[in-house]
Amino acid sequence: MTSLNYNIEKEYGVISESKKGWKKELNLVSWNDRNSKYDLRDWAPGREKMGKGITLTGEELIRLRDLLNEMDL
Amino acid sequence: MTSLNYNIEKEYGVISESKKGWKKELNLVSWNDRNSKYDLRDWAPGREKMGKGITLTGEELIRLRDLLNEMDL
Repeated sequence: MTSLNYNIEKEYGVISESKKGWKKELNLVSWNDRNSKYDLRDWAPGREKMGKGITLTGEELIRLRDLLNEMDL
Repeated sequence: MTSLNYNIEKEYGVISESKKGWKKELNLVSWNDRNSKYDLRDWAPGREKMGKGITLTGEELIRLRDLLNEMDL
């Protein structure tokens, strides 16, 4: 992971926080100076470490939103 | 990954599909016979392989839904 650089361009919000302070966040992130993508990921306090996550396009996020709105949560 | 077993208990929908046929899906999955969680993940055709993904609790999914509904997508 040492050669990975990222830039968090926009923060949409925190989805949850663990007892150890890791936060699951939805952000707009540019990885290695590529085009930015939406990113759903766990971050350690102060963003010192990153955990597992996935990146999503705008279209995928719209589809996900529509699916979630159809669900009985 | 050989000792990992999973059971897809419910399928909510496909979020996208790649040219190679991998699908990003939202499912309810039980991993290694533990309590089921929501799972957002890429799957190869026929679910022969699994890609990167994250699991979410119901509360996290509600929060994510609310965030997405606030966004201008």
